[in-house]
Amino acid sequence: MTDDERAIQELVETWMRASRSGDTATVLSLMTEDVVFTTPGRAPFGREAFEAATGAPEAPRIDGTCEIVELQVQGDWAFTRNRIELTVTPPGGEPMRRAGYTLSLYRKEADGRWRLARDANLVIAQS
Amino acid sequence: MTDDERAIQELVETWMRASRSGDTATVLSLMTEDVVFTTPGRAPFGREAFEAATGAPEAPRIDGTCEIVELQVQGDWAFTRNRIELTVTPPGGEPMRRAGYTLSLYRKEADGRWRLARDANLVIAQS
Repeated sequence: MTDDERAIQELVETWMRASRSGDTATVLSLMTEDVVFTTPGRAPFGREAFEAATGAPEAPRIDGTCEIVELQVQGDWAFTRNRIELTVTPPGGEPMRRAGYTLSLYRKEADGRWRLARDANLVIAQS
Repeated sequence: MTDDERAIQELVETWMRASRSGDTATVLSLMTEDVVFTTPGRAPFGREAFEAATGAPEAPRIDGTCEIVELQVQGDWAFTRNRIELTVTPPGGEPMRRAGYTLSLYRKEADGRWRLARDANLVIAQS
């Protein structure tokens, strides 16, 4: 495994750990300023909408796992396909299972750190 | 617009045109051998499953548009985010509207041609 591959793996692990603990500031530090998230049934959105949703009082508690299924690096860009399994619990609500895959693009920025730049998230509710 | 950007735009246009006319052979020529499609609620699938679905007698007729919202090239890789609007009509059935975005990765192969390599498709039914 190359240094770049290891850095991206650590990014993915840090992201999940910070999401589980509700540490939005750390999650935001792992994405580029111009990040674009694409999810089913919603117009693509960026960093501010992500922060507003995850930092809100009604934001659900998140637990789960994120496994890198594929990882390729090309220069200052890389992509992963991740398999995600989540339990999402709204405040005072019942836990809901969600699962699915992402296609995620990362960019190595001027400070030498990899950050998430584009993400297509196909994680959906499980019956 | 660079030659690479123009080639990718032509690929996207050819793909839509071939999909509309049911020309599966042309669509297959526009994807890499190791292509992976990711769609909501289904395990990722490759070229053979794509061919089986689109070439089947029960395959729907497809009409619509595909607009490139963003295009970036990095060496032999590129990505686009596309906005797709489709009318999907099963044989003997009613037309259904579908819309949404993709995140699509392309690879420039040894023959100098760009092909779709990874695709996350968030095009879903519209009420």
